[in-house]
Amino acid sequence: MTVTEQQMANAIRALAMDAVQAANSGHPGMPMGMADVATVLYSKFLKFDPKAPHWADRDRFVLSAGHGSMFAYATLYLTGYASPTIEDIKNFRQLGSPCAGHPENFLIDGVECTTGPLGQGLAMAVGMAVAERHLNARFGDDLVDHRTWVVAGDGCLMEGINHEAIGLAGHLGLGRLIVFWDDNRITIDGATDLSTSEDIAARYRASGWHVEACDGHDFNDIERAIHASLADNRPSLIACRTLIGKGSPNKEGTKAPHGSPLGADEIIATRAAIHWPYPAFEIPADILDAWRATGQAGAEAHAHWAKRLAASNHAETFTKTMAGEVDSAWLQPHLESLIAAPQNIATRKASEIALTAATAALPDLLGGSADLTGSNFTRTVSTNTLDKNDYSGRYVNYGIREFGMAAAMNGMALHGGIIPYGGTFLIFSDYCRAAIRLSALQETRVAYVMTHDSIGVGEDGPTHQPIEQIMSLRLIPNLDVYRPCDTIETAECWALAIESAHTPSVLALSRQNLPQLRTDISENMSAKGGYRLRSAKAERKVVLIGTGSEVAIAVSVAEQLEEMGIGADVVSMPSWERFDAQSPAYKAEVLPSDTLRVSVEAGTTMGWERYVGDGLRIGIDSFGASGPIDALYDHFGLTADKITAQILAKLG
Amino acid sequence: MTVTEQQMANAIRALAMDAVQAANSGHPGMPMGMADVATVLYSKFLKFDPKAPHWADRDRFVLSAGHGSMFAYATLYLTGYASPTIEDIKNFRQLGSPCAGHPENFLIDGVECTTGPLGQGLAMAVGMAVAERHLNARFGDDLVDHRTWVVAGDGCLMEGINHEAIGLAGHLGLGRLIVFWDDNRITIDGATDLSTSEDIAARYRASGWHVEACDGHDFNDIERAIHASLADNRPSLIACRTLIGKGSPNKEGTKAPHGSPLGADEIIATRAAIHWPYPAFEIPADILDAWRATGQAGAEAHAHWAKRLAASNHAETFTKTMAGEVDSAWLQPHLESLIAAPQNIATRKASEIALTAATAALPDLLGGSADLTGSNFTRTVSTNTLDKNDYSGRYVNYGIREFGMAAAMNGMALHGGIIPYGGTFLIFSDYCRAAIRLSALQETRVAYVMTHDSIGVGEDGPTHQPIEQIMSLRLIPNLDVYRPCDTIETAECWALAIESAHTPSVLALSRQNLPQLRTDISENMSAKGGYRLRSAKAERKVVLIGTGSEVAIAVSVAEQLEEMGIGADVVSMPSWERFDAQSPAYKAEVLPSDTLRVSVEAGTTMGWERYVGDGLRIGIDSFGASGPIDALYDHFGLTADKITAQILAKLG
Repeated sequence: MTVTEQQMANAIRALAMDAVQAANSGHPGMPMGMADVATVLYSKFLKFDPKAPHWADRDRFVLSAGHGSMFAYATLYLTGYASPTIEDIKNFRQLGSPCAGHPENFLIDGVECTTGPLGQGLAMAVGMAVAERHLNARFGDDLVDHRTWVVAGDGCLMEGINHEAIGLAGHLGLGRLIVFWDDNRITIDGATDLSTSEDIAARYRASGWHVEACDGHDFNDIERAIHASLADNRPSLIACRTLIGKGSPNKEGTKAPHGSPLGADEIIATRAAIHWPYPAFEIPADILDAWRATGQAGAEAHAHWAKRLAASNHAETFTKTMAGEVDSAWLQPHLESLIAAPQNIATRKASEIALTAATAALPDLLGGSADLTGSNFTRTVSTNTLDKNDYSGRYVNYGIREFGMAAAMNGMALHGGIIPYGGTFLIFSDYCRAAIRLSALQETRVAYVMTHDSIGVGEDGPTHQPIEQIMSLRLIPNLDVYRPCDTIETAECWALAIESAHTPSVLALSRQNLPQLRTDISENMSAKGGYRLRSAKAERKVVLIGTGSEVAIAVSVAEQLEEMGIGADVVSMPSWERFDAQSPAYKAEVLPSDTLRVSVEAGTTMGWERYVGDGLRIGIDSFGASGPIDALYDHFGLTADKITAQILAKLG
Repeated sequence: MTVTEQQMANAIRALAMDAVQAANSGHPGMPMGMADVATVLYSKFLKFDPKAPHWADRDRFVLSAGHGSMFAYATLYLTGYASPTIEDIKNFRQLGSPCAGHPENFLIDGVECTTGPLGQGLAMAVGMAVAERHLNARFGDDLVDHRTWVVAGDGCLMEGINHEAIGLAGHLGLGRLIVFWDDNRITIDGATDLSTSEDIAARYRASGWHVEACDGHDFNDIERAIHASLADNRPSLIACRTLIGKGSPNKEGTKAPHGSPLGADEIIATRAAIHWPYPAFEIPADILDAWRATGQAGAEAHAHWAKRLAASNHAETFTKTMAGEVDSAWLQPHLESLIAAPQNIATRKASEIALTAATAALPDLLGGSADLTGSNFTRTVSTNTLDKNDYSGRYVNYGIREFGMAAAMNGMALHGGIIPYGGTFLIFSDYCRAAIRLSALQETRVAYVMTHDSIGVGEDGPTHQPIEQIMSLRLIPNLDVYRPCDTIETAECWALAIESAHTPSVLALSRQNLPQLRTDISENMSAKGGYRLRSAKAERKVVLIGTGSEVAIAVSVAEQLEEMGIGADVVSMPSWERFDAQSPAYKAEVLPSDTLRVSVEAGTTMGWERYVGDGLRIGIDSFGASGPIDALYDHFGLTADKITAQILAKLG
């Protein structure tokens, strides 16, 4: 007997309800509700090869409604990916299982990105769709010709980032992006009309999208809607009218199955209702065979693609590009040019000239700014505009969409073939912090160019002056935060950021000009995180530790102290993370405990106890103020005279 | 000769261009472009009394496009507010001037909220409009009957928070909210079509808004659009087609005047073009008189209102409510009930029962949740739903809009008469961090109920498990972060949060059950931030410092140590901010330096050096994982056995 689509869909429903029940934790409602859409998508449209989950030209599928993670695990298992096994699914949500509560890209192949923080999956998919078009423009249809598919829920659509993401997608005309909206009219608190009255289709249309609607439980109607979406050159939203928990006779269509197991009795009732007499975690062979067959078309497409790649002039470049290999040969000549002609410029400007060298050498770098191009200095001669008329460009005008930009960059990095960087003011890291965290968790190579990194912002005042931002970014695991002090360190930090294949970076850069302090370029000293920039001449009593724009101030303090016969080292510490990774001996040598250690950073002092112990922490523990930069540095006590006086008082 | 509207508008233009020129810093383009709208609004519609900027029934005006701050300072000066003076305007953007780079509510009356971080002004205005309708429902038309007006730019509309804010406003039917969109088609990087292709009017309509368009330089057309908006019972967007920098013959309509002075030559040209022959900062007496007359209608309305207030039965309650006076009498009986019947419950549940007592006693408390009501436990029997059918309700279903919720709460608190609190998961503090920062900067009394505050979240995994969030919130100036350990501390912290008229609070609350540890309720010990919960029995060698759910673990560790003859104190530290504010003697007594100090908190350990020096910092410096809670606590070493072993190793 031929296996029906309904039987295939019910296999997803059964796995979802049984895994959640076994874990006594999880969200069965979404995978049960969207099982029919999943069946049509995987069996008729999605281009994938279960034996080659990293195949570069696969379609990307993003489960933006990540709480419905059993949707992902069920489809990956059924279609024949090596992971998860049925044992993994039985261990859903258990420590060590690849079937985590939410899908984690670093745990399982076929999960293109980590989702769960609502709205971000769809926004990352926008980045993936940009990456596809850009690489298509670079390498041609033979090598890059795929789509990006998303399943999103009401939460993904209600979050603010949705507005940013779909606005960008509409503007860039990303017609290969298709979003299934699980239109089940239920959120955690109950019916969606408790909190929203929006005409979602009209909003998407207003943002330049094509919109379809279908009965999410009618296989033919789903297929029709997908075909209509494929035929339209705009990004598409398909509103799939579904019942959450579809199949559960007493709970479908209510908020009950959203985030709780169905319960043993209701699972029995559901088995009966959907004609699924099989034991938990058992998929009949014919149904499993039908699912496994869905990957054949993709496997064949993959084989054809592999032949095209082998025959392509681009083969080597494309393979290296997708592998993310980078060459840092641009760095040394750039450093030499700086030594030859030292420049006293803002580190944001130093970043621009470093980027000018890097983008000329590395075509994978793709930049942008959230409407602050002329302030972030993120654009170079090598980065023309990427827009719907020319996807070969390497610069995205992200608009005033910091969060959308950050999520899109995550999507580009996850897609592969692109090393994205994007600029905004450091203060607006707060607007995109949730995406920066996902960069770190997902281990993506994304570089955040965060300029105007202190009260050095000046007159714009406290709303625009970072105080706690640098320290708060240092708190995020697997994020490298750099605050270079001059042109040399800025270039060094850029090289480190570009080389860090599995760690995102933040470059905190000054608005104001700074002297070029470094004279030795024989080694990338920024790689050590912190190092002695200046050694005490008199007997060493003090070690000043500065970052970024305050290193030059620390040097002035040291000079004042030396004039009084007090020896003072100056340590530049562009990166805590890299310094912490050094050997205990190195750290003790750079920060000897028998000295008065003094941190100087124009931001919160909380946290600097780590390096100065009972020493002095010079910084700012209140909000900033509006005024010219010199007045502010004086007002907040960040001048050499005022710091020296504090040190003398402490020395007694 | 009668002063024309054009002359009045040009007074704004002149002040804006001259102040920015004098400061050599600022944004003349917006105030010059919107000067005509400002003139119509202030002279014909806005209800305000310059002599009584705190009048409760004034219209609220929010300059969401805060970079155009000279719009605010010019109108406040011209209409006759005591501040700013013309001298203040001459000192625009200088340290100490109330005319800061962006408008700061704490520096100047008439500035209803701090703006500059784009999108948040409009979102706060939504909260103000909710507050108005709620207080109207409570106190009647005689006392509360005003409107909320907003000027927003393209940036405010492009930010994600705009979607959340207007969705909420449309759903709640806030017909007294009118937003002027400065439709100048210019952003910092250039024309808006560089980055957006959106049909903004259609999007607003899709969100339940009424939309008008007008020529922003045609006084009659502006007036017509406002009348049409007043006549509609939906919130209104008025698209005002303007030229940025209007009046500047060579720069209007370009990006040049957005964020830079016009320059001396262009100012001369502008003076000629707009027929403004007067020196900088000089407003001819007749034009100033015309402006000063605009406040008369408001002053009369204020006088009538004062009579109504005096005659009202609500007079005393209304006055106290608007003054934000609170009575903490609810606390002690609640604590006594807990002592009488101790409860081992999650602190999120402890929060619910504290809120049940507090909301019954304090009608000013107005709650809500971002679609996590049943998880945050934010709803009580006293808080019925607030929706467009019943504004008297005290509970807002904010939907999946964390950022919009936070900003709306800021708006409610700034409006006065309401003490807002709202719930989400602690991890999603990252989604609304920029609004939490504005709570702190603006000194608003907002309580953030942040549940699921650690790996105690369990199976949902790393995307939902806060690691760095608690510490990163502690970094924000003027924000009290509470992490109570049991029912008693939770109630104490709630009392402190409600009493803190000028400081917002975060309550970080557990998902999991915790024992009731406190037995003494004679004093609000949480007010000290940290205190000795348990004293060593044997000779004290160790001081354990715990917060929240880890205090009970610290107690178990202490018991294990005592069994080995090692004396150990346990300090509960629900609030760093409050502990830091204690005397040095108190702090030294609680955390004696001659002991091994050990912090225990299920989050990042960075920062705990402050209290433990070279002691032990027990916590989690990586992302979390998906699994049952007990497995996770064991995996991350946060069990009594594992901690005790570390302490013994350290003691040697």
